Formats: sequence, C-alpha cells, structure tokens
Amino acid sequence: MDARQPVPNGSIISRLAEMGLELPPAPPAVADYEPFSVIHPIVYTSGQLPWGTDGVLLYKGKIGSDLTPEQGFQACQLSALYGLAQIAAAAGSPDRIVRLIRVEGVLNVAQGFTDTPTVLDGASHLVNHVFGERGRHSRAIATNPELPLDCACLIYLWAEIL
Amino acid sequence: MDARQPVPNGSIISRLAEMGLELPPAPPAVADYEPFSVIHPIVYTSGQLPWGTDGVLLYKGKIGSDLTPEQGFQACQLSALYGLAQIAAAAGSPDRIVRLIRVEGVLNVAQGFTDTPTVLDGASHLVNHVFGERGRHSRAIATNPELPLDCACLIYLWAEIL
Amino acid sequence: MDARQPVPNGSIISRLAEMGLELPPAPPAVADYEPFSVIHPIVYTSGQLPWGTDGVLLYKGKIGSDLTPEQGFQACQLSALYGLAQIAAAAGSPDRIVRLIRVEGVLNVAQGFTDTPTVLDGASHLVNHVFGERGRHSRAIATNPELPLDCACLIYLWAEIL
Repeated sequence: MDARQPVPNGSIISRLAEMGLELPPAPPAVADYEPFSVIHPIVYTSGQLPWGTDGVLLYKGKIGSDLTPEQGFQACQLSALYGLAQIAAAAGSPDRIVRLIRVEGVLNVAQGFTDTPTVLDGASHLVNHVFGERGRHSRAIATNPELPLDCACLIYLWAEIL
Repeated sequence: MDARQPVPNGSIISRLAEMGLELPPAPPAVADYEPFSVIHPIVYTSGQLPWGTDGVLLYKGKIGSDLTPEQGFQACQLSALYGLAQIAAAAGSPDRIVRLIRVEGVLNVAQGFTDTPTVLDGASHLVNHVFGERGRHSRAIATNPELPLDCACLIYLWAEIL
Repeated sequence: MDARQPVPNGSIISRLAEMGLELPPAPPAVADYEPFSVIHPIVYTSGQLPWGTDGVLLYKGKIGSDLTPEQGFQACQLSALYGLAQIAAAAGSPDRIVRLIRVEGVLNVAQGFTDTPTVLDGASHLVNHVFGERGRHSRAIATNPELPLDCACLIYLWAEIL
C-alpha cells in the first residue's frame, strides 16, 4: 500500500457518522495567531478548545471536581473533532489527509487527579476510529494550572496531508 | 511569489526598529543543551527567557499577581525577541529566515488567571509585525506551576530558514 | 563527515555501558496511542515514564519534597533511556540513529522548586554522552501540577533515523 495514500474518499465523514459525529466548521483562533500551520505537508494545529455550537465553551473547569472524567473524555473528543476540522481545512478536504502523526493534550484537572491518560483517550479513540491504521499516533500529555478561558482541555493534532 | 523567498534583506532589522527594538545577541543555554536545533531547514529554539541586558531576568514571578498582564505581554515580546536572535543565529543572518511556523509559550500565572492568550500576543504581535504574511503562525499555549529561575515566561519559536 | 552518517556501529551500546547502563526493551504505551511516530525520518516519542524493571514506577511524586533533586535527575536519565529504546525500536537498531534533535521534559515538582534545568540535565547528559556531537539538542522544559500515575517526569525525544 502506498504510504502516501489518503484514507479512501468519504470514509472520514462516514466513520465520524458511525460515532454519531459530524465534521464541524474549523474554529477561528482566539488571539493573534492562525489555527494551523503547514510545513513539508505536515499540519500542526493550534490548541483546540471544546466549543459548543453556540460559540461558548461546552466544557469548562477542572476534570475531577467541576467535571467528571467521562466529561473530560467527551471534552477531549470534541476538541479533537475541531482538530480534524482544522486539518481538513488545511488539506482542502478530508480526503486529502494522509495520516495522523501526533496527539498532544493539555488537561485542566483537580489536584491529585492523575488518570489523565484515560481522559485523553477521548481524543485518541476518535483519531484511531476515524483513521484506522493511518490514525496510529504518538502522544504528549500535560496538565496546566490555568487554561485559556478555563477550558477543560486543549488538543493539538499533527497530520500529514497531500 | 516563491514560497521559499526570505523576508527582503534588512527588513527584519528595520521592522524591529519601527517597534523601538533591536536584535539582541543570541543568549546561551542555561544548562546542558543547545539554544536551537535545525532539521530539514526548520529551526526549533529552546525556551527563551526574558533576560535583561545585565544577564539577570527582567521579568520574574507570576503574571496576575507579581506582574501585571501588560508586564507579561512585555515579557513575551522580549523572550520572542531572543527567539528571533536564535533563529537568526541558526540561519546565519536575519535575511535567511524564510518564515515563522509556530509560537509556543509557557506562562507563569497567578491562580485563576486565564486570559493567557492576550498575554502571549506579546510574542505573536512581534512575529506578525516583523514578518508580515510570512509570520503567520500556529500557536501552543501553556501555564506551568514552576518555571526555570521563576521566569515569567518561556517562548519557543519554530521557523523555516534557507 | 556525512551529515547523515549514524553513530558508529555498536558505540551507543558501549557508551551506555560506560555509564553503567544498558538499553532496555521499549516500553508499551499506557493508553490508546503508540510509543512513537515517524515522519520524514524523524522519530517523535510519546512521553516516557521512569519505570522500574518490575513494571512499577521507580520514581513517583514531587521533586523537591517526595524526591530529592538527585532522584529527579536519575528519573530523567531513566526516562531518557526508555526514549533511546523507543528510537532504537523505531529505527530497527541503535546504529540506525543519525542524531538527536530535541529533548522535552515535564517535571513533577514541589511548590517553589525552580532549579528544573539541572534536574532535566539527567536526560541531556545521557544523550550528550551517548551521541557526542550528534547528541546536541534543543530542549523544552515544563512543570505540570499532575502527571500520569504521579510519575516524577515525562521525557520526550526527537531523533533523526536512517
């Protein structure tokens, strides 16, 4: 199989649909930067926040106190979905995404909450389901004392595009 | 326009001058590492601290308590200036910088301070002003409980060079 | 000297032995991701934890209270050793590693502990000793309030491979 062959046309949209999800519009940046940059056909997204459809944050506060781990998982899935939207925007269309390279997640957690890998799997499961073998990614995980707008998580994706 | 064309000769220095700034010497690393690495003409700087001209930190402590947000903004601008100095050193001269790719900022903030995107714009505004269209960058933002030497921020730049 | 020439065959193993260390098996990921990804012959590892030989963490808790700075240094060295194991696995063998590019370290520290660069040198010294001139790397340093499984550190390595 050609290493540069993208996921078959349409399958990203249909795989998202299998999870009850659809690709949202790519959100704008919240300050003086761009939502992604591309170099040597790799897209690096900026941090994606868990926005609701009404332009306010759907998940705010600390996972482990304000939010349950399951809500944290959902927040990571939602932010990763926006990450996919950014990559699709960078590539021109979802079927020009070749593979995912890396997921980086920054989590807003209560003191003593250390089961962060399971929460960040909200992003990883999505990517793995949508892209299959082409979604296999390395990962960076972080917690920060304060996140922008007190969002529950920031998700960054790296992907190769055509 | 050739995508690999650098900013016109001399303009980085003159655009910095428009902001009342000049390119400083590239600071050394503070421990057993190098200030930047280059691969496939991309420079990745190490974290840049907001040094004063006398070799002591100009901005220390937490933004939102020890420092105002405006001072945090200035700290990010100053650290980004050293980031430009590192990239210029890696490239051999400022006119061999092709484009900025990414700004990553780690901020030292007081509890509950979440308007970090505005503070990190100290770095982004500088890059955008100096490079124009070639400065458009994606961004990663973080807060950490403790920064090296209690500096107010660490700024990392990614850039393509000739 | 050819910039793509790897470290001479066998020398990585022997340089580790000079430090009383040997290359361990590459540890599996702790959640739904891969231990490394490779793009354009660069390996990006996932975060490496300071595992003991019995599958439990050897270094847990906060550097500066639960652990001494020297123990933090050892934790960084141990995690970096697993990072080398991941890179060797990605490359197929240690002698197909061309050079190290970057060390990223996230430290679990007590409040007010800011001499993090010295602790992270546990990773940098190892890389510098093992690879010599080809180990010269840029570095990113972070502290986080909560790390996965309360590990003392996470180390990420970037390397070029054949």
